[in-house]
Amino acid sequence: MIRVAIAGYGNLGKGVESALLQNEDMKLTHVFTRRNPESLNILTEGVKKCSLSDIASYKNDIDVLVICGGSATDLPELTPALAKDFNVIDSFDTHANIPVHFDNVNKAALEGNKVALISAGWDPGMFSLMRLYSDAILPEGNHYTFWGKGVSQGHSDAIRRINGVKDARQYTIPVPSAVEAVLNGENPTLTTRQKHTRECFVVAEEGADLAFIEKSIKEMPNYFADYDTTVHFISEEELLRDHAGLPHGGIVVRSGVTGLNKECKSTVSYKLTTDSNPQFTGSVIVAFARAIYRLSEKKEYGCKTVFDIPPVLLSSRTYEEILHSFL
Amino acid sequence: MIRVAIAGYGNLGKGVESALLQNEDMKLTHVFTRRNPESLNILTEGVKKCSLSDIASYKNDIDVLVICGGSATDLPELTPALAKDFNVIDSFDTHANIPVHFDNVNKAALEGNKVALISAGWDPGMFSLMRLYSDAILPEGNHYTFWGKGVSQGHSDAIRRINGVKDARQYTIPVPSAVEAVLNGENPTLTTRQKHTRECFVVAEEGADLAFIEKSIKEMPNYFADYDTTVHFISEEELLRDHAGLPHGGIVVRSGVTGLNKECKSTVSYKLTTDSNPQFTGSVIVAFARAIYRLSEKKEYGCKTVFDIPPVLLSSRTYEEILHSFL
Repeated sequence: MIRVAIAGYGNLGKGVESALLQNEDMKLTHVFTRRNPESLNILTEGVKKCSLSDIASYKNDIDVLVICGGSATDLPELTPALAKDFNVIDSFDTHANIPVHFDNVNKAALEGNKVALISAGWDPGMFSLMRLYSDAILPEGNHYTFWGKGVSQGHSDAIRRINGVKDARQYTIPVPSAVEAVLNGENPTLTTRQKHTRECFVVAEEGADLAFIEKSIKEMPNYFADYDTTVHFISEEELLRDHAGLPHGGIVVRSGVTGLNKECKSTVSYKLTTDSNPQFTGSVIVAFARAIYRLSEKKEYGCKTVFDIPPVLLSSRTYEEILHSFL
Repeated sequence: MIRVAIAGYGNLGKGVESALLQNEDMKLTHVFTRRNPESLNILTEGVKKCSLSDIASYKNDIDVLVICGGSATDLPELTPALAKDFNVIDSFDTHANIPVHFDNVNKAALEGNKVALISAGWDPGMFSLMRLYSDAILPEGNHYTFWGKGVSQGHSDAIRRINGVKDARQYTIPVPSAVEAVLNGENPTLTTRQKHTRECFVVAEEGADLAFIEKSIKEMPNYFADYDTTVHFISEEELLRDHAGLPHGGIVVRSGVTGLNKECKSTVSYKLTTDSNPQFTGSVIVAFARAIYRLSEKKEYGCKTVFDIPPVLLSSRTYEEILHSFL
């Protein structure tokens, strides 16, 4: 039984918890929090609730530690700090900072003879794998990634910070004609605006200036200014009733040419649709946590990414069963 | 430069050849044939044309040997025979016999301190990988594989063996409503007939009994009897004009549930469309041939499958570039 602990019990931590319950060779043993541990209401029975500040004293009780925190400030600090004492896995997703994060985590893991894996999930994660596989198979081609339809928590948060906004939910939506052109192998050149639209559902404070809110959203640099954005003002009841979930998804496409005269086209696509972004992300993390544990048993220490993991290590099944049922 | 040789210069061998020309770190050095080597018209310059019976004398000149033969009789004999002297890769696709083939090849590769990889291509191959990944990520769910629209060479050959048939091309076509139900996460139970239809284009010999041919096709056990099959009689000119290519493709889908109460659905699908089945298969084989070479450098001998290969080994790019561009 692989003993898994979670640091950080938010949406993602709960997604990891429910994924662990679907895998009989793994179990959740500890949850670490910065809050008062007794305040946590953990749904799995028999899990120890502990303070993150005491985590070092549990180093012999845990096979893999899943670090569930934000990529802006939590993970750049926590993952390297914990990788010396634990086999760790995180879902670090600030693309531009991945090389630095990798180096920091790698150094700590090698110092402590541990295995770490950063940036697990679906993007980065499964989508990254698909980009790599299809680039290797079709070296002459273009790749495209579309996200959505789904809730972007970062964009929802950005709206909430506007004066007069009580709550908000933002959906990222791929432009159907762009996806279709890509899947048809047309290799279009697409601007940011041509790839995705953004749809916002906003609950305003009583008496707020709706025109100001709408303008502030649509003109917000980086988040909205480069997109066609629609803003709907709705009631808090409507938000809770119709937009409580965290669905997401997306599609990665590679379109390439083969043949002596590059006369043949091939298009490969990988598509995800999920009702729950944190549960799906948690499910990916749990499969890679199994691989991390197995690599630590083989003493293959250091920081890894999804690219380094032989797929067979993700599965709880025997090799014979895998050959028989999946090849 | 990785020196790659091909044994068998048919459609697949030519697909491997053209894929090698798209990969700058690899080159085709030898083609082995059972025919008179001088009769081969090899399109890449500077390739040695050799008799398969002399292959053992080239064992120091080749890094990876791609064995392009049929799964019925060629590969079960050739791959184990050659795996002692060469790092080999094949596209063995008789699903039921994979475990036996694996054992035979593994024994030979371990004896000779070589690396082998069997069953590379898209199915078995990339589709197998997708089945494994998504089973590991979504352990509670169903998976589905649809093939086509594309030319099945086995079914085309079966038609050609009927009395009065001069030539034939058979397309395997997924039933659109079945694919749609699966992609919608409906988890349907589908019979063979509900998953695929078969469309046949037949050139009859002059004066042949068309009704007999049509009946023989539609009632052929294993190949057609369990499917809704359409037969079109066309002229040889039409066959050559409209059905000369070998397009194929397919889709692998997994639909699973997550959450403490299994309340959320996720659907993951991987779809391929290619104008040329042998070129795409050759492209996959070439990427895995690179991995095989690298494993042999690390002395990780024995028989492998796509499941054993860390994805990073497939790529010609540096790890830094992969982290930066794909994660």
